[in-house]
Amino acid sequence: MTKYKIVVQYLSAGYSGWQVQKDLPTIGGTIEAVLSRLTGESPAVVGSGRTDAGVHALGQVAHFRLEKPCCSKRLLRSLNGLLPMNIRVLRLVTVPPSFHAQKDVLKKRYVYRIYNGPILSPFLHGRVYQVFPVLDFDRMQEAAESICGSHDFSGFAASTTRVKNRSRNVVLSGWRRKGRSLEYRIEGKGFLHHMVRNIVGTLVQVGLGKRPPESMLEILKAGDRRRAGPTAPAEGLYLAKVWYSF
Amino acid sequence: MTKYKIVVQYLSAGYSGWQVQKDLPTIGGTIEAVLSRLTGESPAVVGSGRTDAGVHALGQVAHFRLEKPCCSKRLLRSLNGLLPMNIRVLRLVTVPPSFHAQKDVLKKRYVYRIYNGPILSPFLHGRVYQVFPVLDFDRMQEAAESICGSHDFSGFAASTTRVKNRSRNVVLSGWRRKGRSLEYRIEGKGFLHHMVRNIVGTLVQVGLGKRPPESMLEILKAGDRRRAGPTAPAEGLYLAKVWYSF
Repeated sequence: MTKYKIVVQYLSAGYSGWQVQKDLPTIGGTIEAVLSRLTGESPAVVGSGRTDAGVHALGQVAHFRLEKPCCSKRLLRSLNGLLPMNIRVLRLVTVPPSFHAQKDVLKKRYVYRIYNGPILSPFLHGRVYQVFPVLDFDRMQEAAESICGSHDFSGFAASTTRVKNRSRNVVLSGWRRKGRSLEYRIEGKGFLHHMVRNIVGTLVQVGLGKRPPESMLEILKAGDRRRAGPTAPAEGLYLAKVWYSF
Repeated sequence: MTKYKIVVQYLSAGYSGWQVQKDLPTIGGTIEAVLSRLTGESPAVVGSGRTDAGVHALGQVAHFRLEKPCCSKRLLRSLNGLLPMNIRVLRLVTVPPSFHAQKDVLKKRYVYRIYNGPILSPFLHGRVYQVFPVLDFDRMQEAAESICGSHDFSGFAASTTRVKNRSRNVVLSGWRRKGRSLEYRIEGKGFLHHMVRNIVGTLVQVGLGKRPPESMLEILKAGDRRRAGPTAPAEGLYLAKVWYSF
């Protein structure tokens, strides 16, 4: 038995997210199907976490096991040969049997991309969230930085979240700007369902002057999802990087 | 009667090129259809030149005339409101009646994008030409620069080209590199059909060591299309910019 770790990039259009679902095209399901076609085995592909429908990945990480070992270089090439062009395996390495792509996560980075202007380039369509009115960058930066640290993030979790412990440690939260393109980065060990998109939706309201930067901390204190802004669209969100101890 | 100049960006997938053709979806035809829906008139949209199926544009320029004048700002917004997301009008201005988007061209820039590596990002699929073996950048640069100046470009024209005068003046021809992404830039007043893609196809052969950099000038001297390399794929080519005297 050999365990493999893969780093996967994907453009999410047309898929119902990462997690394997019956009768629905998913990224994980597509990789599993190609693996079983290649090896004759039926390995489960376990990701570092789910990404929702419409959410892209620059560096999702997953593991799977094969009974019969394959040459990593050849397996990587064969996988990319059979996968559709909107899913690419960037790296494939063997890992110790104890490695677990979800349980061993040290840190994850999500990025959220916004185009802040009236005319969106066709080359960015489906890959960013277009916001028409001019956003106040400094206010959004202040608001973004205010949520760093350990907090109960119930106020930014999807109302359907069933997880009991909603304390999360955000180690980085901030914006970068290049012309009219804005990029939000958030890093932490784990995030609640819709947490990043709900944070971004609220930060955009801050940037539009609809609420003060201080409201971020007030939402955290109140722990009430109804106080936060709308969920920002999936198409702007990217799972950018996942860190492990080795 | 008012004449308008538009700068258009488009992602060419799904269109049969720029030029209006009966019963085929084209960029020009799509813009004409939206204009007639908006204005009730049937203006002809005249581009700076045709782009073939699969060729993208960062800044195609076109003109059209309307009998009833419209507010430019409003017309721009309405156009983008009705056009599909893979075509965007970036700018719209009124021009003197004498302006002609094709006849008044001073200079055009085409860029050609190559990804030189084994694994292509899903985010670049359909937008670059992927070349797997490592290309020799310096040889390609030497070959690219050698074609600058006025030459008879018959050797790089499509074999079906019917134009008699095939002399063209290339004022810039060179590569830029950023990691594994290569970008070729060529500038001149005009180009023959398939000229840029045939030049790039030949430059790639130089980069692969299949022919020496000097073969570019030999092809120009011989004027024989059969001596040049294959036509590089359309998906890597972009009409980047068109210059006018005002």
